[in-house]
Amino acid sequence: MSQFRPAGVITITTDLGHKGPFVGVMKGVIATRNPSANVIDVTHDIPAHWPPEAGFWISRAYPYFPRGSIHLGIVDPGVGTERDILVAEIDGHLFIAPDNGLLATLLPRANSIRKLDLEGLAGLHLPAPSSTFHGRDIFAPVAAELAAGNVLPEDTGAETKDWTPGWLDEPEVSHNRVSGVIVTIDAFGNLISNVDARLIDGFRSPEVKLSGRRFPMQTTYGRAEPGSYLALINSFGVVEIARVEGNAAEHLGSDRGAPLIITDLGTG
Amino acid sequence: MSQFRPAGVITITTDLGHKGPFVGVMKGVIATRNPSANVIDVTHDIPAHWPPEAGFWISRAYPYFPRGSIHLGIVDPGVGTERDILVAEIDGHLFIAPDNGLLATLLPRANSIRKLDLEGLAGLHLPAPSSTFHGRDIFAPVAAELAAGNVLPEDTGAETKDWTPGWLDEPEVSHNRVSGVIVTIDAFGNLISNVDARLIDGFRSPEVKLSGRRFPMQTTYGRAEPGSYLALINSFGVVEIARVEGNAAEHLGSDRGAPLIITDLGTG
Amino acid sequence: MSQFRPAGVITITTDLGHKGPFVGVMKGVIATRNPSANVIDVTHDIPAHWPPEAGFWISRAYPYFPRGSIHLGIVDPGVGTERDILVAEIDGHLFIAPDNGLLATLLPRANSIRKLDLEGLAGLHLPAPSSTFHGRDIFAPVAAELAAGNVLPEDTGAETKDWTPGWLDEPEVSHNRVSGVIVTIDAFGNLISNVDARLIDGFRSPEVKLSGRRFPMQTTYGRAEPGSYLALINSFGVVEIARVEGNAAEHLGSDRGAPLIITDLGTG
Repeated sequence: MSQFRPAGVITITTDLGHKGPFVGVMKGVIATRNPSANVIDVTHDIPAHWPPEAGFWISRAYPYFPRGSIHLGIVDPGVGTERDILVAEIDGHLFIAPDNGLLATLLPRANSIRKLDLEGLAGLHLPAPSSTFHGRDIFAPVAAELAAGNVLPEDTGAETKDWTPGWLDEPEVSHNRVSGVIVTIDAFGNLISNVDARLIDGFRSPEVKLSGRRFPMQTTYGRAEPGSYLALINSFGVVEIARVEGNAAEHLGSDRGAPLIITDLGTG
Repeated sequence: MSQFRPAGVITITTDLGHKGPFVGVMKGVIATRNPSANVIDVTHDIPAHWPPEAGFWISRAYPYFPRGSIHLGIVDPGVGTERDILVAEIDGHLFIAPDNGLLATLLPRANSIRKLDLEGLAGLHLPAPSSTFHGRDIFAPVAAELAAGNVLPEDTGAETKDWTPGWLDEPEVSHNRVSGVIVTIDAFGNLISNVDARLIDGFRSPEVKLSGRRFPMQTTYGRAEPGSYLALINSFGVVEIARVEGNAAEHLGSDRGAPLIITDLGTG
Repeated sequence: MSQFRPAGVITITTDLGHKGPFVGVMKGVIATRNPSANVIDVTHDIPAHWPPEAGFWISRAYPYFPRGSIHLGIVDPGVGTERDILVAEIDGHLFIAPDNGLLATLLPRANSIRKLDLEGLAGLHLPAPSSTFHGRDIFAPVAAELAAGNVLPEDTGAETKDWTPGWLDEPEVSHNRVSGVIVTIDAFGNLISNVDARLIDGFRSPEVKLSGRRFPMQTTYGRAEPGSYLALINSFGVVEIARVEGNAAEHLGSDRGAPLIITDLGTG
């Protein structure tokens, strides 16, 4: 039984950037079908064709939106091929994305996962989709109708337990060591990993290694000297490497995909 | 007789970028006069002072917005000089832009074209416009009042048949050959031309030439090998050169304005 | 007695950029508490950790928003330390920012300035704030509740007369000479100073000096030859150096912080 009660909010996370009308026309399609929908941009600056970062941010951001929100993740290098589109329900939120690993970190805790079946949605009179922009032709109108309550999650297709795994390894955990990977870099150059704070909860004296360097774990940017590096649990609950009032990514030369190891010196 | 019935939607296409409060204050002016207007950004990344790209995207994007939308195109190198502002009605949508060629591809099919006459809009109590930002001082408040139904298209000025032509040549068409031009490049580096699919509808075996190279015509990105180039009809119905999971513009060194020729090998 | 009557509009000015979900989750938090709030982005491209530009644009932009708007300025290098958050009321608008000089140009004309006291807002059930993202954890929910009228400005904390001064010197004025500084550069490369037009109101023949060059004062971009430089009073009422249909910042090599002197040749 679905817990989803539409709140009228639709979020959009893409690699479409800001050039051209791509995100704008998705909002136009939504406004045409559901004039009162509240459409919120999460980001459109996901690196082109790289689903893991979209899924990472969606999984960390969705709790800050109202229950009943619909979250679109559109990083879709396989658009126009046979790839499926998934509709997953988690905590009363809906998530819609191509079945390309984008949602992989979220799906293990989904209440339901469905493969979008446009035949069952014939009543929506969707246009014949283009082969290159399903964001506009499928995701936007389906989200608009779900947000309006005109379509229920159950109407979107049959449940499945079969979906594409994620592109990044999940963190490996042993009793005094966790290894993960840098997933994204923010506008300040902070290097953000996929290591959740709970994985190092019991560590008495955690030290982070990245690119051959060691970083002490601190609680906030403001407590260290400008220019110094530190590791901290960031505001989304994952381990991050920052440079105080500076750009860590630029100065360390590290990038997405770089491995990161956290060791508990206190139990050595 | 105007077919325009305001839907409360205003779209904005500019070269104002994202630095500074320029687009934000336009939205502030709209919210002050019409709090329920739904303002949607199309793009603000039009190359500075280059109207044709704004007009191209507006002409391709507007059908995805509700009838009764108002579309502002603000790329305005002549702001503060004697240039006119045009208000055109097409398919129940309104288009407002400087008379500098921006709307030239749309105007031949307009139901009406008017020159904005602020004297007839004295009831709106517009501020004395600055000489450098009519987007905020004229376009935004006029759109807000039109979207609220407080002003009718007929009130905005006298009809005209006299307007500035476009900056780019329209495609040239012969029985087995069409020549056009690259108008814009999207965030993925896809090179997008002004050649509408209908111009090559009868071609049995179309081949595209750009920058001395030849490209086969395919139906979607996903059908070719990563790194390979292809030509396709994109989701806005025009010919585009793409590199599968790569950046065509960067690797080909082509840019806006590059000529493009499509030949039908099947009728050679 | 507060003149603030909430208009339901919240503006956001930050250095958070467009990568990642930072601004999006602020909007999610606002939508959760106040679904009908109209959130308007001013800009998120303030240079990282540089409050003066945020304050400059907020002070110049706010009059274009409805009275009763709430303006958030979030450039916050001291987040997580003991720095205060200020809530100022000016002309029926509210301004909320860290006490780090961001609002310094506005505060001298505030009707009231308060230090945000979360203890007095216990009824809002704010989450325990993270130490690195008060935009999401404090600014957004407090603004949402103020915009809904659930909290009054008087509830936000005790009045103070003690606040951090601005990072830039205010312009120096003598009878025929004003000196100021470049505060920001827009997407066109126009160099925008902190010298208000009123400071040179009586000048009969003003000439601007910047980076060793002299610029004539004109009324609009469109009146000079493409490629030529000029000084003008821009649409926000301050002196600006522009290059007609070109990029002044790039060609002059000037940047934020560069000193600018305006002399009245007519009184020499």
